[in-house]
Amino acid sequence: MSGPYELLSQIVTPVDLHRFSDKELVQVAQEVRQAIIDNVSETGGHFSSNLGTVELTVALYAAYSLPPDKVVWDTGHQAYPHKLLTGRLPRFDTLRKHRGISGFLRREEHELDHFGAGHAGTAISAALGFAAARDQLGTDEKVVAVTGDAAIASGMSWEALNHAGELQTDICVVLNDNRMSIAPNVGALTNYLAKLRSRPEVQGLAKLAKDVVEMIPGPAPRLAAGLRHGVTHMLAPEETGTIFEEIGFEYIGPVDGHDLPTLLAVFRNVREAKVPMFVHAITVKGKGYEVAEEDSRKWHGVVPFDKTACELPKKGGAPAYTQVFGEAMIEVAAEDPKIVAITAAMPDGTGLTSFAKEFPDRYYDVGIAEQHAVTFAAGLAAGGIKPFCAIYSTFLQRSFDQVLHDVCIQNLPVRFVMDRAGLVGDDGPTHHGAFDVSYLSLIPNIALCAPRDATELREMLRFMAGHSSGPIAMRYPRGAAQDVLPEGRTPIRFGQAEVLGVPPGGGDGKPTIAIIALGSMVSEAWRAAQSLAEEGVRASVVNARWAKPLDAETLARVAEECGSLVTVEENVRIGGFGQQVRDALAERGLGKVPIEIVALPDEFVEHGAQPIIREECGLSADALVRVCRRLTAGPKHLA
Amino acid sequence: MSGPYELLSQIVTPVDLHRFSDKELVQVAQEVRQAIIDNVSETGGHFSSNLGTVELTVALYAAYSLPPDKVVWDTGHQAYPHKLLTGRLPRFDTLRKHRGISGFLRREEHELDHFGAGHAGTAISAALGFAAARDQLGTDEKVVAVTGDAAIASGMSWEALNHAGELQTDICVVLNDNRMSIAPNVGALTNYLAKLRSRPEVQGLAKLAKDVVEMIPGPAPRLAAGLRHGVTHMLAPEETGTIFEEIGFEYIGPVDGHDLPTLLAVFRNVREAKVPMFVHAITVKGKGYEVAEEDSRKWHGVVPFDKTACELPKKGGAPAYTQVFGEAMIEVAAEDPKIVAITAAMPDGTGLTSFAKEFPDRYYDVGIAEQHAVTFAAGLAAGGIKPFCAIYSTFLQRSFDQVLHDVCIQNLPVRFVMDRAGLVGDDGPTHHGAFDVSYLSLIPNIALCAPRDATELREMLRFMAGHSSGPIAMRYPRGAAQDVLPEGRTPIRFGQAEVLGVPPGGGDGKPTIAIIALGSMVSEAWRAAQSLAEEGVRASVVNARWAKPLDAETLARVAEECGSLVTVEENVRIGGFGQQVRDALAERGLGKVPIEIVALPDEFVEHGAQPIIREECGLSADALVRVCRRLTAGPKHLA
Repeated sequence: MSGPYELLSQIVTPVDLHRFSDKELVQVAQEVRQAIIDNVSETGGHFSSNLGTVELTVALYAAYSLPPDKVVWDTGHQAYPHKLLTGRLPRFDTLRKHRGISGFLRREEHELDHFGAGHAGTAISAALGFAAARDQLGTDEKVVAVTGDAAIASGMSWEALNHAGELQTDICVVLNDNRMSIAPNVGALTNYLAKLRSRPEVQGLAKLAKDVVEMIPGPAPRLAAGLRHGVTHMLAPEETGTIFEEIGFEYIGPVDGHDLPTLLAVFRNVREAKVPMFVHAITVKGKGYEVAEEDSRKWHGVVPFDKTACELPKKGGAPAYTQVFGEAMIEVAAEDPKIVAITAAMPDGTGLTSFAKEFPDRYYDVGIAEQHAVTFAAGLAAGGIKPFCAIYSTFLQRSFDQVLHDVCIQNLPVRFVMDRAGLVGDDGPTHHGAFDVSYLSLIPNIALCAPRDATELREMLRFMAGHSSGPIAMRYPRGAAQDVLPEGRTPIRFGQAEVLGVPPGGGDGKPTIAIIALGSMVSEAWRAAQSLAEEGVRASVVNARWAKPLDAETLARVAEECGSLVTVEENVRIGGFGQQVRDALAERGLGKVPIEIVALPDEFVEHGAQPIIREECGLSADALVRVCRRLTAGPKHLA
Repeated sequence: MSGPYELLSQIVTPVDLHRFSDKELVQVAQEVRQAIIDNVSETGGHFSSNLGTVELTVALYAAYSLPPDKVVWDTGHQAYPHKLLTGRLPRFDTLRKHRGISGFLRREEHELDHFGAGHAGTAISAALGFAAARDQLGTDEKVVAVTGDAAIASGMSWEALNHAGELQTDICVVLNDNRMSIAPNVGALTNYLAKLRSRPEVQGLAKLAKDVVEMIPGPAPRLAAGLRHGVTHMLAPEETGTIFEEIGFEYIGPVDGHDLPTLLAVFRNVREAKVPMFVHAITVKGKGYEVAEEDSRKWHGVVPFDKTACELPKKGGAPAYTQVFGEAMIEVAAEDPKIVAITAAMPDGTGLTSFAKEFPDRYYDVGIAEQHAVTFAAGLAAGGIKPFCAIYSTFLQRSFDQVLHDVCIQNLPVRFVMDRAGLVGDDGPTHHGAFDVSYLSLIPNIALCAPRDATELREMLRFMAGHSSGPIAMRYPRGAAQDVLPEGRTPIRFGQAEVLGVPPGGGDGKPTIAIIALGSMVSEAWRAAQSLAEEGVRASVVNARWAKPLDAETLARVAEECGSLVTVEENVRIGGFGQQVRDALAERGLGKVPIEIVALPDEFVEHGAQPIIREECGLSADALVRVCRRLTAGPKHLA
């Protein structure tokens, strides 16, 4: 792999960059960009965001000394250049593959992955923690946080900036401002950043920044002291400072995030400062790969593609749950003008892009602000509107308190729609929706349902639209939504399970086991029951539909009829669906019925293709068959 | 009650204020203040914060029309004047009493309690939701959010301001700036607000504000349009705007929050605007009650006191858990220089005030910023420091995602200390720590312990200091910490329960039931076992110590020995300790052992004195006795 990466292949650790001249560093940047294009076109992954941080990373790592300096990246999807500059070029072809390198930063993966992150907005807090630890220990390494213009609008970034401005310790926040994170940014701060950007011409300013910084003779304290009314105002020539200055940072910017010589000059000087510094760099998503620059949203996360033809493969197969939801939202909203939809910076990911076009006035993108999204929805509901709050299962964790305190205590009819519930695959542990059944079930007043397939998703969404007596949530997985089950559907009723029974071909007689499956696991349970039928084992399948309230009556009847149960859910065991079934049956005097709970383990599941990691967790038809064989082969406990 | 409240007693709903002259409104304000002093000195409650909002509330409610206008209060503890102006004077003597009126806003309590809140930072989000609902429905009522200078620094306030600045709809945010929430405020924003305050003399400015606003002939659009470069800059005469202007608000202030005529003039004009308005009012906590003005922190939340003597009763009895923790923290920190403590704006409430004095450089108050607190702690831990993060059980809900994503996925040794775990009493459902066992147990990698009494708290804290292999949390209740149990203590070992056995006096022979109690419930269990012993029922008590990891081995042994179990915890049943015990025993083939799970119900528990509401939930020695009698009287299922 050394051919096309003449210099990059010599870099094992970032301090190796110090050996190169500034001119050679330009070549290093080119090679990093090429390595991203070469590899991501083979493996898939985050593309345009990483093309945007090439020069920023090379400049930072050449100007600083890693180790001992530390750079904390806000969400790993801008950190492929970091991976390539920390000796992971040889393994880069295993990106996001099972047991390969992660698409995000992982502390276990590399000593210079100082802090992992998949959720946005954490970098400044973590970096400030590193800086405070340094101050406690009396060492003198530098700490940098690199955040994005969407992440910085999240509440916790603001909390961290506020604390850093007060602590006045040595820390640098770099704002990688590409004017969009995944989708175009929203929020007043975006307009504000645009204003900062538009003041002088960025190019001219970058030139000025370079000249000014190079003019300064001795570095550190004088630079810092002079900034507020000196350099900063020359760089951002307005009469008073920016928001960032107001809360205690020295602001430098905006600078061209692709002008390597300027970035090197800026970072080499900033590194000498001892106070909170804020460097505002303007970058272009997809930089250096023309079609990705033109449509960075389309090229944000990609599957393997033909890098010469510059074309993404066409999508085929069954529509994703995401798409089914998006279409169903438009249908229900067309019938009820009180329905509105809310997303937290994920219009594409949640499937709301078409809704936004169809009903622009009934669509709210609040930015990476899940907390506000939920309490805003609570206000809408209290005001007589029917809000659908579409947030990934993993990101709704950010709103746990708002769901509990603002929605559920007040029993407000907010509708939550959680895509990516269950194992998401390549994105790994920070993105798996492994916990929502547990963290929502524990909250009083909320109801939680999960559709078995595409048609049921549409029907449940319609049910939710009509459910105004309290909060309600729906979860469904990442991936294709096929209708694989028998046609005879029963209508959705609040808190009622659907008994699908024994698949055809299992002979006559009473079933000897029941598989109680939640949402995504119903199809696996059905396939397992079909296999078992071929072996002569009659397994009855129950589509639970509701994790809360539990249909304890139906489950008790099935338990008595079948004599043993398997529950299966794509959620952790603790506090999950299976434990609720076990508890409910025990309360009904059925504690002796053997129950096997199949669920995600009490550990964080690694990344890898969905079928592989589901199988490893026992969430497959084959695994269910094995469990049922074992249970039905044993002594009849109920007899 | 009409004697001393001549005008106030005539007010049933805020529009009644329109009948009074501005001069009479001054008298109304005096009566509201007197009513707060008269009542809170009898009932206890939040005192200095509510004395600070008297004029603000009277002015707002006289200037606006409620209903249909809506005012959303950020945390109810500044909203007693609101309660008094909405017809609740006759019931005000039941404040915070069981089945009396709540200390916070409650939607169930009054139609003008538009949005309840006990956690800070929610008002702007909720108000923006009401404003958006209004815009959807095409009505034209006004919406106001009243927030505080501590609450506005919380991340979700920032998210909401950012969204409001973008939506540019008709909303008014009033900042009640008393320079401290409960304790003195922290964070760079505080310095910034101080700068705004100090610019011109507040008094002079307030006068100016009044003159300027009154000069404006036609109200609304011209006011709004002219503000950015006109009125605003006259009121806040610097060359560019404030942070709040930068993100899209029209800023008015600072104004004297106790100058009723000025406030009336400001609000009457602000009400006519159609764009996001920001009114910055300076208030004094404890205003009008001299000792409370002088020490507003001491007089923030009070027990009944002698209003004439102006004295709070001295505290007596056993030290609170809070105090035990505070002292123990100092002890462990004295031995280990790597230990630091973090609070989120609650130095007094969490017991860290003395620690802060003893180790000022090892103490971090991050403000109302629980999210940042946790990820900051994660950064500290990753940097080699031992952070103790002391946050109430209910407020740690705000950090659920940070605990999961930043601490637990990375298995970082952050120590969480949760005071107020369980039912807190008078503060009610927004403050009960009813969920932490469930919401932490579901997260992989974290351990959770709960001490049975004061001595065990100290021992567990010491254990936590030495536990660096992963995250660990401790929960303990509000209230007095007495050592009531037998002296023979066993050392704390990771994941190991302590079998206390049968209390003396129960006769000989094998116990027939075991009570497995977690933390605060151990003393109740012991008392129950003592009562049962007197009846000849031998109940063995187990101090579980660890909710996670569960000591399944010991519990299985006890279950086999005793034949039936009761688990008891001050936490909701779903996902809680009891369900984990049931699941663990079933997995060990002990599904037939009768288990009764005593826990909080799947509903929000109302406010009231701790003993009353604990008894109502079955969390008392008496209730446990009844459960044990029932279980031991039945047929022996295991026989």
